[in-house]
Amino acid sequence: MGKLFRNVAVIGAGMSKFGRFDRKTNRELWVEAFLDSKKSVDNDIDVKDVEALFLGNYSSDLFEKQTHTAPLMADLVGLTPKAAMRIEDACASSGVALRLGVLAIASGEYDIVCIGGTEKMTNLTTTEVTDALAAASDTHSEVLAGATFPGLYATMATAHMAKFGTTEEQLMAVSIKNHANGALNPKAQMQNTITDIMNKRIERAKQKGQTVPSWADEYEFLKSSSNPMIAYPLRLFDCSLITDGAACVFLASEEVAKKYTDTPIWVIGSGQGSDAFSLDDRDTMTSLRAARVASQQAYQMAGLGPQDIKIAEVHDCFTIAEILAIEDLGFFEKGTGGRVTLEGRTALDGDLPINTSGGLKSKGHPVGASGVAQTVEIFKQLRDEAGERQVSNVEIGLTHNVGGSGSTAVVHIYKR
Amino acid sequence: MGKLFRNVAVIGAGMSKFGRFDRKTNRELWVEAFLDSKKSVDNDIDVKDVEALFLGNYSSDLFEKQTHTAPLMADLVGLTPKAAMRIEDACASSGVALRLGVLAIASGEYDIVCIGGTEKMTNLTTTEVTDALAAASDTHSEVLAGATFPGLYATMATAHMAKFGTTEEQLMAVSIKNHANGALNPKAQMQNTITDIMNKRIERAKQKGQTVPSWADEYEFLKSSSNPMIAYPLRLFDCSLITDGAACVFLASEEVAKKYTDTPIWVIGSGQGSDAFSLDDRDTMTSLRAARVASQQAYQMAGLGPQDIKIAEVHDCFTIAEILAIEDLGFFEKGTGGRVTLEGRTALDGDLPINTSGGLKSKGHPVGASGVAQTVEIFKQLRDEAGERQVSNVEIGLTHNVGGSGSTAVVHIYKR
Repeated sequence: MGKLFRNVAVIGAGMSKFGRFDRKTNRELWVEAFLDSKKSVDNDIDVKDVEALFLGNYSSDLFEKQTHTAPLMADLVGLTPKAAMRIEDACASSGVALRLGVLAIASGEYDIVCIGGTEKMTNLTTTEVTDALAAASDTHSEVLAGATFPGLYATMATAHMAKFGTTEEQLMAVSIKNHANGALNPKAQMQNTITDIMNKRIERAKQKGQTVPSWADEYEFLKSSSNPMIAYPLRLFDCSLITDGAACVFLASEEVAKKYTDTPIWVIGSGQGSDAFSLDDRDTMTSLRAARVASQQAYQMAGLGPQDIKIAEVHDCFTIAEILAIEDLGFFEKGTGGRVTLEGRTALDGDLPINTSGGLKSKGHPVGASGVAQTVEIFKQLRDEAGERQVSNVEIGLTHNVGGSGSTAVVHIYKR
Repeated sequence: MGKLFRNVAVIGAGMSKFGRFDRKTNRELWVEAFLDSKKSVDNDIDVKDVEALFLGNYSSDLFEKQTHTAPLMADLVGLTPKAAMRIEDACASSGVALRLGVLAIASGEYDIVCIGGTEKMTNLTTTEVTDALAAASDTHSEVLAGATFPGLYATMATAHMAKFGTTEEQLMAVSIKNHANGALNPKAQMQNTITDIMNKRIERAKQKGQTVPSWADEYEFLKSSSNPMIAYPLRLFDCSLITDGAACVFLASEEVAKKYTDTPIWVIGSGQGSDAFSLDDRDTMTSLRAARVASQQAYQMAGLGPQDIKIAEVHDCFTIAEILAIEDLGFFEKGTGGRVTLEGRTALDGDLPINTSGGLKSKGHPVGASGVAQTVEIFKQLRDEAGERQVSNVEIGLTHNVGGSGSTAVVHIYKR
């Protein structure tokens, strides 16, 4: 296991704007992402040369009452009669779609495939979205017991706090960092630092003639009633966003990649793991086994270790999830994820920048699109095309995409 | 395209009983299918050796409000922490899952994978099921216009009748044949010939003291009010069943297949195509382009043609669908599918037996499981393990699995 018969590269990557778009369905968002990705291919790619579509989509079933989205989306961008398949692994849907696309090319069957991810969420109320997402946890135990995802991740957070002394400030540091990064990403849903948001609240209070808050800093703001508790210790700003959006990449075999670009981004590692479906069946609450398994496979395929990774997009559906991720991936010692984040080591100017895109927290989390959107960021960074948030001299990057409460994880490693 | 780097075999195949099971969820059905398949592997297979689960499931989202079913099902059969992914392509979900499993092994990544298919449908009312299935057609045009799947396939049927003179009797002949086959399949939902069903109705009328019907034969029965019109020209017995069920196969690379069995069934051809999503966008109503594309790819990979196929399981979600299938696959000339069926050429003792399992019509159609269940039948037939419905001396078989109104099709060719 783990030795592919040929190499695969990303030759183009793009995404729609992430946000809330009342007048756009999944269909419009997907076309926007596809065209953005197509435009990014250095030497034009003809739709006729694309042989298949692997589409990550969590549940247009529940969000839009539309299933069978793969041939639908293929049809909209001129891919008919090519093979089109939808992959669902909760919030890891498009990360897994990417992996299956890599394997399909490595098998010899295809030379060029398109990987998509898309989700339309904001047409439902927050309660309905929470409910639709909860379907990705165990409906026979967790949902029946009243748990939703904030509660499940809160359980992991309290376990991490109890075992390692992780603090609420350390969780907040993840949010502050990712908002700072997202503020530099024109595709992000929230292009605001926590300070920006704080100042807007102050301005609003002034305009309304209310008592003007006097927060000492971002941490004071995040500890205030302006950042309400959702499920202890997770507050509003510890949670990722409800988002409409789509992302798209093109993959090519080593035989044809150079025809399309002089700067392909090679997928040198890929791994996927699972874990017990229900949280209470797991050995530990402070680490995701699926992520450890997936990263070990990816490192092995790449012939690299955590120390070789220079930039990563990790699955920060909640702030605690980023802390678990940077530990499970081996970047930092287990239990120290919160501390190193507070110290700034994962900031844009730190020694290992994490979620330079803004992450799910600030860029937004259209669940089926998030995996491919991570790849879009790494593609841009490794090609020096990340604009204001560019990290200098990055040759090797990683994406880490998690489904549900961690019963799916998929990891990819990329090299310029 | 179409040359895989190594060969892949089916080494085990099994399924749950198909039917209506009020006390079983998807979970129980899946475990039943997994164990049945595991038992079929000649030399025991250890769950530890299975490296991934590819699960076809149409919409447990809408049927059971449970998503992320792949790691859930993996967990139930001891596959944790292996990779687990769900594939959705409407009623072709598990046929596509099979294909992706084949490609994953051909890529070098895995040596042994498990392919599952599962659907629990009977917990909803017939109206709710029709509605949940309709989500696989175009909700922006077809569903808004009031179309459901019987209506869409009825449109194809009337087009076929208008163009080729296909008759209602010819449609009925598909149903009569598949019920005759299903009567010989202990796993089938309806183990009754049409004559059996007719005689039961007569018996019931007698018991109730009602006027006893005097149908001359099966065709007279199928033309009577006992077989009500659903969407002209499709009557109740032209439609497949609403079913709970699961199916499972194990695939192995050529390097390890012989370790598990002396009689592997090789997957020598695989193809997948798509078509315009909405029926009104297509060039023709009397042929499914996706099926033609998929079968051409599969024939090319196998280096074979339609004349080499000795047995096939095709997607008879409606009787007209089987007629389209045997034409689109090149078994019979376009327009003659109904006539040759009425002539008995596709019967168990015909020159090309079609749907010996009973097909979706009589075996049942748990939509996400149907693709893999087709493979189960071909596996049994090619190994001379099909019991009363065994066709003698079959070395090469084919499966044809369609999603929605034909915007997905996937074809596989197998050899003993």
